[in-house]
Amino acid sequence: MRYELFYWPSIQGRGEFVRLALEAADADYVDVARERGRGLGVAAMLRVMEDSALERPPFAPPFLRAGKQVIAQTANILQFLGPRLGLAPKAEATRLWAHQLQLTVEDFIVDVHDTHHPVAMNLYYADQKPESKRRARFFTEDRAPELLGYFEKVLQRNLSLGGRRGYMIGRSLSYVDLSMFQIVAGLRYAVPNMMSRLEAEIPGLVALHERVMLRPNVAAYLASERRLPFSEDGIFRHYPELEA
Amino acid sequence: MRYELFYWPSIQGRGEFVRLALEAADADYVDVARERGRGLGVAAMLRVMEDSALERPPFAPPFLRAGKQVIAQTANILQFLGPRLGLAPKAEATRLWAHQLQLTVEDFIVDVHDTHHPVAMNLYYADQKPESKRRARFFTEDRAPELLGYFEKVLQRNLSLGGRRGYMIGRSLSYVDLSMFQIVAGLRYAVPNMMSRLEAEIPGLVALHERVMLRPNVAAYLASERRLPFSEDGIFRHYPELEA
Repeated sequence: MRYELFYWPSIQGRGEFVRLALEAADADYVDVARERGRGLGVAAMLRVMEDSALERPPFAPPFLRAGKQVIAQTANILQFLGPRLGLAPKAEATRLWAHQLQLTVEDFIVDVHDTHHPVAMNLYYADQKPESKRRARFFTEDRAPELLGYFEKVLQRNLSLGGRRGYMIGRSLSYVDLSMFQIVAGLRYAVPNMMSRLEAEIPGLVALHERVMLRPNVAAYLASERRLPFSEDGIFRHYPELEA
Repeated sequence: MRYELFYWPSIQGRGEFVRLALEAADADYVDVARERGRGLGVAAMLRVMEDSALERPPFAPPFLRAGKQVIAQTANILQFLGPRLGLAPKAEATRLWAHQLQLTVEDFIVDVHDTHHPVAMNLYYADQKPESKRRARFFTEDRAPELLGYFEKVLQRNLSLGGRRGYMIGRSLSYVDLSMFQIVAGLRYAVPNMMSRLEAEIPGLVALHERVMLRPNVAAYLASERRLPFSEDGIFRHYPELEA
């Protein structure tokens, strides 16, 4: 099965959580909006979104086409891909748990995004700076430590139950581990001061980030041009004044 | 199976989306934090959250206990309950679609919440009024019309495909319809001016709200004391100054 991923071509954004899963599993996929040619590019993505014959239209990118199915919402795409890529647990109850964690990752991403867009996503950061400053302070002092602490607790609890390899769920890699990698990497880029303060308190997540990064498929992806850099157009943005 | 729902006892909040599903299906459930007695009340909820022996701890309420499983994240709970309560489609692909819509409902709820809490959820509304005013304007002028327009489009597309009874998915009631009921009811309470402007553009959703409200189980629930009123402590809050 060749998967087609549709996402904005110039940022990691939410698409990156899907991309990491496809790359870690060495899946056959096309990153449609980033390619040029017939049926490719951003125009092709917009055509799907505006296709009035599409029974199940996505509200926003990212979305995935798998044969005739078009699936949107990052966590939902991962829930679909997980079992197909060998990146999800087998038991139904454990899959639900993986998805529950992924939905908490989604909450985290909203909080990261809103540090620089607390007022409106259709305004520039420059137009909501005072609000951003207050929201970012809440994020770095309360929300991010709380969420990271929660994920560290989940990881430690899994370790204590015999998940000796240090994954979030059970004893093998899942899409949740890949998302935790991206959270740690993104926060290091966006709020380095907060992370230097906090990392000693989340040793499990720091080790997990390293372990994921060194997996051959992930390492090859990160070294490739397919991995876009973090930037001030994405979700994780580095604005030093927001950490002041 | 007797389900145990855990949620803050004095607000509808996110718990209401789960409660509506349990009530519409006439399921056997206990609203744990709202009851008094041994093993009940808020203390019982906090005990579960702080239970260090719990392998899969929730990050926040609402969560559901079903036998030995503890499941959190509203959309995830509904994904679990849907098939068990006869409130989800049968085919896997259609279930994924229902969940995708529910996740878009979740995005909507975050936007509603952030109209009065754009800076920090641990501050009072009174401490973030100027920011709320800007965020609420974006919500009522852009975001809410866009999201309601999307859901109306989904409903109309389903109607045109033969879903003559006017449900969001296929030909029968699902948890997504119950959530759309709550969205319409909540917005009518919170931003009545916006809704009087917009309702002519979303006739399908307005009719769906009515149809859900008149279902015997739902009507009985809404007339009971189990249905908490909307208030300025919940997600949908009516602050007239935010519509000015």
